[in-house]
Amino acid sequence: MKPNPEGLAIGIDIGGTKMLGCVVDESCAVIDQGRAATPTELDREEALDVLEEFVRSLHELGKQEVGTIPVGIGLPGMVTLDGVMRFSPHLHALDGVDVRARLSERLGGVAVSVGNDANCAALCEALVGAGKDWSDVLMLTLGTGIGAGWVRDGELILGAHGYAGELGHMKVDPDGLSCPCGGRGCWERYVSGTALERLVQEAVDRETLTIDSDPGEGIGQTVKVLAQRGDLVAKGILDELSLWLARGLGFIVAMGDPGVIILGGGLTDLADEVIPRVVALLPTILEGGTIHESVSLRIADFGERSGAIGASLMARRSS
Amino acid sequence: MKPNPEGLAIGIDIGGTKMLGCVVDESCAVIDQGRAATPTELDREEALDVLEEFVRSLHELGKQEVGTIPVGIGLPGMVTLDGVMRFSPHLHALDGVDVRARLSERLGGVAVSVGNDANCAALCEALVGAGKDWSDVLMLTLGTGIGAGWVRDGELILGAHGYAGELGHMKVDPDGLSCPCGGRGCWERYVSGTALERLVQEAVDRETLTIDSDPGEGIGQTVKVLAQRGDLVAKGILDELSLWLARGLGFIVAMGDPGVIILGGGLTDLADEVIPRVVALLPTILEGGTIHESVSLRIADFGERSGAIGASLMARRSS
Repeated sequence: MKPNPEGLAIGIDIGGTKMLGCVVDESCAVIDQGRAATPTELDREEALDVLEEFVRSLHELGKQEVGTIPVGIGLPGMVTLDGVMRFSPHLHALDGVDVRARLSERLGGVAVSVGNDANCAALCEALVGAGKDWSDVLMLTLGTGIGAGWVRDGELILGAHGYAGELGHMKVDPDGLSCPCGGRGCWERYVSGTALERLVQEAVDRETLTIDSDPGEGIGQTVKVLAQRGDLVAKGILDELSLWLARGLGFIVAMGDPGVIILGGGLTDLADEVIPRVVALLPTILEGGTIHESVSLRIADFGERSGAIGASLMARRSS
Repeated sequence: MKPNPEGLAIGIDIGGTKMLGCVVDESCAVIDQGRAATPTELDREEALDVLEEFVRSLHELGKQEVGTIPVGIGLPGMVTLDGVMRFSPHLHALDGVDVRARLSERLGGVAVSVGNDANCAALCEALVGAGKDWSDVLMLTLGTGIGAGWVRDGELILGAHGYAGELGHMKVDPDGLSCPCGGRGCWERYVSGTALERLVQEAVDRETLTIDSDPGEGIGQTVKVLAQRGDLVAKGILDELSLWLARGLGFIVAMGDPGVIILGGGLTDLADEVIPRVVALLPTILEGGTIHESVSLRIADFGERSGAIGASLMARRSS
């Protein structure tokens, strides 16, 4: 690695549809950021071309020569301890690819760190965000799917293979909805932006709910406003999402007993409706009921940037 | 503490019905052991009397004066980080009791460590038993209920309040069987000695299964032999237990990604029938299916002594 006099780090969060890259300084301030489409439709080498180009463009934004800034990348899937993308439900082009080694090689030996995208977000929120006052932090990103990461005493818990906290495909309803991953009853089918859209669409199809706007962008806000005006179907949708969120949290709390659970991702538009429902449900789900010390539920401080900033922190730790 | 020239430690495992105490040397060999009934029907002070007397008797077995040997106690319930039994489904007399302080005081200041009973068993198996070759060890004790403990790099993961790995009351079937804990659909209703007895009793009541012996002691062995002779109802019971075990393991693996899962407790009588079934089911439950590196399933090395030996290790570490 060449000298990095500005002490910058690049963090990239690769989502199911788009990538966000941030150039981050030592105080975790974002100096500049860029976006690109996730190369979901390309083959392996083309996808790596896109990633390489994106990293180069972020060096330009940071006004530094390629090879000077350490790079961290959050990948949307199961990442092994040595940086191989083992399985991604949404980015098959990189399945089995040693992303760390391949990108470092293409970028002339620049230090590249890779990890699971939600783990990166968890690292950010645990170290400098909403979880910084707790030792046991569980972060959930509720977007297209569910990502999760778990930080204990400032370190990610990765598990024996790197897959700890891969919670979106827990089978919460074994005979339930089918999932693109090939399974059935995966948690993210019931609690995510996708789940919200499905519930809204079902209600619209049954003609029990009328939505003026296009379902998709802003649908959470629409449902929230309807529920707050007393619409029973909209309230029912919020009840359903909250119930499945609470059930999943039941497994998380039983296994990990986090002090705080941080929620990020698009579904947090609904947080002020969903969190009180979940808090009311948890004592019916957790062992010991209300005896169980309450688990704090918080919203992520860094919004859509948690993953990219966390990836930059990962890069900084490894370089 | 007075000198402890023999380097002994006392470990006590308090189960739902009986207590096992071991006097253990530095190599984890059991020098002597004693048993007593768990004081389930007594009040708080009487229960503490019984525990005190049991610790004194174990000092006698170790041929040492009271106050010389550090004592570790595994309690059947939720134990806080500072040694208070917060909630026990089976030993309400000690609910809310600072067992560590109260016993130490009664025993003239002897060093007492307390923890969850299954955590103690996990510590034993992870450090010196079936899990000693893995860094991420999850131990399940399948007895009257389910206990669990989780050891990572030689340290118990306790969580923010001490309740990590309290898995027996995960709600695996939210509208399912009611549980003495007050909840519904708790995992231990479906996978435990109690679950086995229920399934056998239901089959006997339906007159689809004939059991010569008294259901209870040895029932696992009986069901196994019947299944191996081709009895379809006995096979169905094993299928049912295995299915629920695999489903629960699905949550555990998603959250913690252990390298090895160690099974202890009475239900391990069925292990050679149940483990192959679970191994076959897991790829249908885990994200990535067969891509997921296989998780090793092992039987505990120390049998019914895991908890007591682990409690002695805990005592040794704290003293």
